[in-house]
Amino acid sequence: MQIHRVVRDLVTSKRNFWLASKSLRVVEDAGGNLEVALDPIGTKPGDYVVTIGISAARIAAGNPKITTDLTIGGIIDHWDENRWRN
Amino acid sequence: MQIHRVVRDLVTSKRNFWLASKSLRVVEDAGGNLEVALDPIGTKPGDYVVTIGISAARIAAGNPKITTDLTIGGIIDHWDENRWRN
Amino acid sequence: MQIHRVVRDLVTSKRNFWLASKSLRVVEDAGGNLEVALDPIGTKPGDYVVTIGISAARIAAGNPKITTDLTIGGIIDHWDENRWRN
Amino acid sequence: MQIHRVVRDLVTSKRNFWLASKSLRVVEDAGGNLEVALDPIGTKPGDYVVTIGISAARIAAGNPKITTDLTIGGIIDHWDENRWRN
Amino acid sequence: MQIHRVVRDLVTSKRNFWLASKSLRVVEDAGGNLEVALDPIGTKPGDYVVTIGISAARIAAGNPKITTDLTIGGIIDHWDENRWRN
Repeated sequence: MQIHRVVRDLVTSKRNFWLASKSLRVVEDAGGNLEVALDPIGTKPGDYVVTIGISAARIAAGNPKITTDLTIGGIIDHWDENRWRN
Repeated sequence: MQIHRVVRDLVTSKRNFWLASKSLRVVEDAGGNLEVALDPIGTKPGDYVVTIGISAARIAAGNPKITTDLTIGGIIDHWDENRWRN
Repeated sequence: MQIHRVVRDLVTSKRNFWLASKSLRVVEDAGGNLEVALDPIGTKPGDYVVTIGISAARIAAGNPKITTDLTIGGIIDHWDENRWRN
Repeated sequence: MQIHRVVRDLVTSKRNFWLASKSLRVVEDAGGNLEVALDPIGTKPGDYVVTIGISAARIAAGNPKITTDLTIGGIIDHWDENRWRN
Repeated sequence: MQIHRVVRDLVTSKRNFWLASKSLRVVEDAGGNLEVALDPIGTKPGDYVVTIGISAARIAAGNPKITTDLTIGGIIDHWDENRWRN
């Protein structure tokens, strides 16, 4: 699993069926690379989170038909930027 | 999921059975790396899109027998190049 | 999916059961990195191809028991080296 | 599978259901990149471990419903930092 | 699939159940990065091998319950270091 920081919401049009009503967040890793994660737990910008990839991402979404390859699995307590970029 | 920009269509010959009648798009990421994504929703060059990988790509194609490992899942509203390359 | 160029055949001994009678090709990406792909459609050195990874690679092989993680899915028409390395 | 060194525990709040009661460890690779792995065997900071990814990570967790994409599979005997960074 | 060179055996303690009686090899890629692969065919240090990843790795292990994400699938004939690092 990866450590990401939530950057902002992602607004899309013409979204596919299984993602249609889901919250998507733009997240960044320690190198500043952006990815998009499904958020089933409710996070806000600035939160450090654990993200789950691969087929586990679909299970973590609560329904394996949900077409995500990256899902937020938890909010990390007491993480600071210095520990992240070592 | 990743953020990509649609570059152009991809024309292939001798394509395998399950991809035979599908729209394929060349997409690029923030670093200019090219990949090929299945497009089930109808995009045009220049669109910024969310792409879905791993086994979720097959489900997002509408039929898990479709042999894709990257499928366009939505068109992003209001994305600009500066936000992409941060 | 990725864009690769076919480099040459790969000859192996002591190959596992499900790959035993299959054509394997050494392929390279835009950066010159080599990988090995299963070729169910018949390609020749120099062809630019679309390669399919993840679990879709096994389906694209025609039998999901075939133990491949990268399978050639089509030959690209009218690709040139300049478009590849942009 | 990858070789990682256990760095410390990870404490999260609002964790998803299937990870709720599991031990998570921050691990680092030879390049110092941090990831998070499920630990079903009991490791301590400083241990060198083999980590299992992809769908095998869920099986290695003891229950394929556990939403992990990286699981510690064993502790490596007699590994030293010099052999790691070659 | 990837091309790797076998470096040495890996000895572990407290290994998980499904890997307990299996041969594990440390392998390196063209860039010298180390990974760990299951070896169901019997290789020795210095052999150049094809390695299989993703869910195909479990099938190539002979039993999909075996928790590997990288399995040696064949020994490459007539490979030389110059061809590897091009």
